[in-house]
Amino acid sequence: MVTKTYDVAIIGGGIVGLSAAIYCGRLNLRTIVFSKEMGGTLPKTDKIENYPGFKSISGMDLFKNVLEHAKEYEDYVEIISNPVTDIKKSGDEFSLITKKQEFKSKNVIFATGSEWRKLNVPGEKEFSNKGVHYCALCDGPFYKDKTIAVVGGSDSAAKEALLLSKYAKKVYMLIRSWLKAEPVNAERVKKEKKIQIIDGIQVKEIKGSEKVDSIELTKEVNGKKELKLDGVFVEIGHIPNSELAKEIGVKLNKKAEIIIDKQSKTNISGVYAAGDVADTEFKQAITGVGEAVKAAYDIYNESKQQDKK
Amino acid sequence: MVTKTYDVAIIGGGIVGLSAAIYCGRLNLRTIVFSKEMGGTLPKTDKIENYPGFKSISGMDLFKNVLEHAKEYEDYVEIISNPVTDIKKSGDEFSLITKKQEFKSKNVIFATGSEWRKLNVPGEKEFSNKGVHYCALCDGPFYKDKTIAVVGGSDSAAKEALLLSKYAKKVYMLIRSWLKAEPVNAERVKKEKKIQIIDGIQVKEIKGSEKVDSIELTKEVNGKKELKLDGVFVEIGHIPNSELAKEIGVKLNKKAEIIIDKQSKTNISGVYAAGDVADTEFKQAITGVGEAVKAAYDIYNESKQQDKK
Repeated sequence: MVTKTYDVAIIGGGIVGLSAAIYCGRLNLRTIVFSKEMGGTLPKTDKIENYPGFKSISGMDLFKNVLEHAKEYEDYVEIISNPVTDIKKSGDEFSLITKKQEFKSKNVIFATGSEWRKLNVPGEKEFSNKGVHYCALCDGPFYKDKTIAVVGGSDSAAKEALLLSKYAKKVYMLIRSWLKAEPVNAERVKKEKKIQIIDGIQVKEIKGSEKVDSIELTKEVNGKKELKLDGVFVEIGHIPNSELAKEIGVKLNKKAEIIIDKQSKTNISGVYAAGDVADTEFKQAITGVGEAVKAAYDIYNESKQQDKK
Repeated sequence: MVTKTYDVAIIGGGIVGLSAAIYCGRLNLRTIVFSKEMGGTLPKTDKIENYPGFKSISGMDLFKNVLEHAKEYEDYVEIISNPVTDIKKSGDEFSLITKKQEFKSKNVIFATGSEWRKLNVPGEKEFSNKGVHYCALCDGPFYKDKTIAVVGGSDSAAKEALLLSKYAKKVYMLIRSWLKAEPVNAERVKKEKKIQIIDGIQVKEIKGSEKVDSIELTKEVNGKKELKLDGVFVEIGHIPNSELAKEIGVKLNKKAEIIIDKQSKTNISGVYAAGDVADTEFKQAITGVGEAVKAAYDIYNESKQQDKK
């Protein structure tokens, strides 16, 4: 069933999608936000200290602020919790298909974020949520006084290790190359006595019976290639959720991120992207929000120009 | 007197410059912020409803939050209140000259914002602060129950008119072309009975004796080309503070804005710009902050690559 044609369809209900929605609302654009998992990754982040305006705020609180803000514009902005399963371009319009319904929109903003990247080693899938985790904030509290490992050497991995050190008695940080965290976080990790950084190492297998008991490594730790532990937190980055965009011919880079310009435009007229799914090198909540706002404004600007024709 | 070489010199102590400073601090870059007028234009804005994270916050409070946040990184970030009067490029370094001292830095971020644009009509300079104003929040309260005019038709002009309608008994909005405010603000202006919008009109002269008594217009209002009033608020846009950038050969557009790319880079290696001085079409606090963060990260990234060489 086709309902009406929206000015903007925003795919993604995280802080980036909702910030786009705030501006679309202010600009009186009829907007629909498709949310798969309300909040995306932000509410799963413990403490955010790098969103200018807040010295420190939890991801959940920042998300709630933005959600409440977006709801102020309900005259123009609808937020629905049906994910988009398919998208098609016909003429100047886009069809966005959910399980129940089809929606039409003149413009689309991809704010679809990214998924946690998997190690793809034996045992990872088998012990998922039985000792294998991807989110310290979600699952860290289960590891009070336990021994765990964080796999990965990025800034996010460092932050996860720091958070986990609040619970666990010992946190191994297993890094394929070397620690690449923001200096402020790298220093914190190095100061934290519970964390032991081991670089130049990879996980070969995750082992256990009911749940994880140990991991098999590519080199020795404490004299053995098998490391006994209670849990593994995999923090080796993200895979951009760009499949839908690809379907309508949006150009991606080698990492499968959507290529955007300074106005957050993609190669297809009327299609924009912002946040973790886009090809911005430094992915932060604040940069994603800036991109979202630029997308909303560009749509507004283009629509005004079309009205004048 | 030459002191030491900083990694980053940030020219401008507004929200954009300070957000760059927060990230430079987090990234352990030795940073100096030159502030001419602490806070720039933001603290002069009454109510901000379009900075995602805050449904509504005063410009002063948002600025204070960011200033306090930047001060957290005092190990790396110095903030001084001497404006830069001259800048020179020598080799890979930049010299930043204040009245008292010379500073060296490897990189420069222009976060210099913009100045209020003048009408350039007779009487404007003469009656400056004697009936001619550029900031409703600063000077609006002096016009309680008075008759005033706002000159300009932009979104900022609309917001200023709305704010002034809280004080004044009558606000003429004199617009050269037509009202170009964000729809949400355009609606508010039209609903406000104290505001009378007159478009297709220009101010020819500002008249008075001790202070402003009337203005001479290009067409009749209420049957006369001379309009009696108590004050004029000029809101016709901004001129980017890009003179210093121009001195070292930074490329500007026709509006004298600094041309930046997606990473906030200018045409000169090591030179960045963000916020109101840059050539972004939609100038918002949030977009300027996003640009600042991208500049800081790009500097960090480039410096890491140089360390590896």
